[in-house]
Amino acid sequence: MGTVVALAGQVGGARLADGLRRLRGKDLAVIVNTGDDHEIFGLAFSPDIDTMLYTLGGIASPAAGWEPAGETYALHDMLHRLGSGQRVRVGDRSLALPLLRTEALREECSLSRVTLGLCKTLGIEARVLPMSNDPVRTVVVTDGGHVSYHEYLTELECEPVVKGFMYAGADAARIPDEVLEALYAPDLEAIVLCPANPYHTIAPILAVQGMRELLRQCGAPVIAVSPIVGDRALKGAAGKMMRELGHEVSARRAALEYYRLIDGFVVDSVDEAAADGIRACGIDVAVAPTIMRSEDDRVALAQVVLDLAQLVRARKEAERSA
Amino acid sequence: MGTVVALAGQVGGARLADGLRRLRGKDLAVIVNTGDDHEIFGLAFSPDIDTMLYTLGGIASPAAGWEPAGETYALHDMLHRLGSGQRVRVGDRSLALPLLRTEALREECSLSRVTLGLCKTLGIEARVLPMSNDPVRTVVVTDGGHVSYHEYLTELECEPVVKGFMYAGADAARIPDEVLEALYAPDLEAIVLCPANPYHTIAPILAVQGMRELLRQCGAPVIAVSPIVGDRALKGAAGKMMRELGHEVSARRAALEYYRLIDGFVVDSVDEAAADGIRACGIDVAVAPTIMRSEDDRVALAQVVLDLAQLVRARKEAERSA
Repeated sequence: MGTVVALAGQVGGARLADGLRRLRGKDLAVIVNTGDDHEIFGLAFSPDIDTMLYTLGGIASPAAGWEPAGETYALHDMLHRLGSGQRVRVGDRSLALPLLRTEALREECSLSRVTLGLCKTLGIEARVLPMSNDPVRTVVVTDGGHVSYHEYLTELECEPVVKGFMYAGADAARIPDEVLEALYAPDLEAIVLCPANPYHTIAPILAVQGMRELLRQCGAPVIAVSPIVGDRALKGAAGKMMRELGHEVSARRAALEYYRLIDGFVVDSVDEAAADGIRACGIDVAVAPTIMRSEDDRVALAQVVLDLAQLVRARKEAERSA
Repeated sequence: MGTVVALAGQVGGARLADGLRRLRGKDLAVIVNTGDDHEIFGLAFSPDIDTMLYTLGGIASPAAGWEPAGETYALHDMLHRLGSGQRVRVGDRSLALPLLRTEALREECSLSRVTLGLCKTLGIEARVLPMSNDPVRTVVVTDGGHVSYHEYLTELECEPVVKGFMYAGADAARIPDEVLEALYAPDLEAIVLCPANPYHTIAPILAVQGMRELLRQCGAPVIAVSPIVGDRALKGAAGKMMRELGHEVSARRAALEYYRLIDGFVVDSVDEAAADGIRACGIDVAVAPTIMRSEDDRVALAQVVLDLAQLVRARKEAERSA
């Protein structure tokens, strides 16, 4: 058993990362999307990092995985009573991480260091690593103009038609040392693209200057899990976006989003029929239940991913020695 | 009936201001201490302004008058879980005003303007005015060194022996236009020093460059209400501080803290015996219940204060015409 690097964001990504954590503990590093980061009241919100910390720390709400369990909204209600036009409904508990992060960043601590410190406090052995300490902002190109992803999600409620995406700052963003260290690990066993929106969760990570090349150069199998089950995204707007970008909404299309990057792809059991089409693109496929309802589901899917990585590795070695 | 200006801070001060508001509505301006202002997580906390807004807005906790009713501490508990060393227990609802204030100040709105905007939102007809828009910080000189009042209250729990006070920045702080306007009102009927700690609530207001002189020049009777009942402060550390500064703890001593500034002084019914000694200092005295348990108590005390102001005015006019 070697080390594992996961690329993740959103609730599904965090849940698979949690499955991997339960299998590998400290031998897991999770590179998390920061393209959705934004400020509310001048505080540094990193929604994907927070979702990951709540999930791996075991304090996420089972129903609403992006916030801590037992969340309340007393502050939000008071803000409204005081005339605030703030539309984003920030929970009382959910404000703690942004407050601590903002304070640490003001004291010139890097986002990587802050986040690793929080892992330690929450008893998370795995390393949660922002994709960069430099700002990258995902911009949604819509039929009504350019908006930040955060604005697209909250103000516009994902309504405008999507024409494309841009990752502002990604060209100049540096890969943090901790991420380089994880990817250069001599015993790197697999790189996992967790099930998450390909356009605004995984793509921003890949857009960080040099990241895509580095993932390929590592030599470890790169395995993705489909964020599309049947003809729709399990959660969020991935299906809608895929359609508006002119693609069919299918597991096969999701695989093609990572073409030339991934060696293996996990599709849901309902998409077994799509497996051959994906294999025809030179991608190994595993078929398994991908909907993670329980903690056991997370571990089972993580095991499927690691098994597929082993299969890819074995096949490649066989090809080399042939 | 003319206009009234009150100098206030703390819960007792806010309660008397509320009594005056019920009698005079928009014809009341309250100048509030900002010497206790401080930052937590980079957010602008103004405890005396917030207490005043909660109280006049009718949303203060009946038991803990410095916070909104129904306060909860979900954020605070989460901060601790996340390893924060923050000792001040900031309530969920109590964070709303500092968040809105910080945002407005960042947008270069003055503290006066922000506060008046919040009055409007909360349906408060009276004007709540910070004593200055420039920073003034109350420093407690203790036997262990100099500390901010906020630190003295929270970190040190009011334990070190008090040797004196300083009001850093007061010499350079300007009186806001709204305060000048209130004090120059041609129909100013009374200036009221509300019952509050003389050293860290009323004194910082008086220390603002030119304030004390201006209060005297207005010509309106200046009336104070004793913060000492019997041989102790009703709330807070006024009694302890008075003793440590080498004074007896008494209503008479409290009156002397405002010597040469006040024309009239209201002592609690239990201190009736002190009235003559205070009168001997050339100060008119009213004796009345000063403990405000109900809203009726607030109005009753406010009426006592305004009656005393009228008595002072009548006496002065009689002296002038004699």
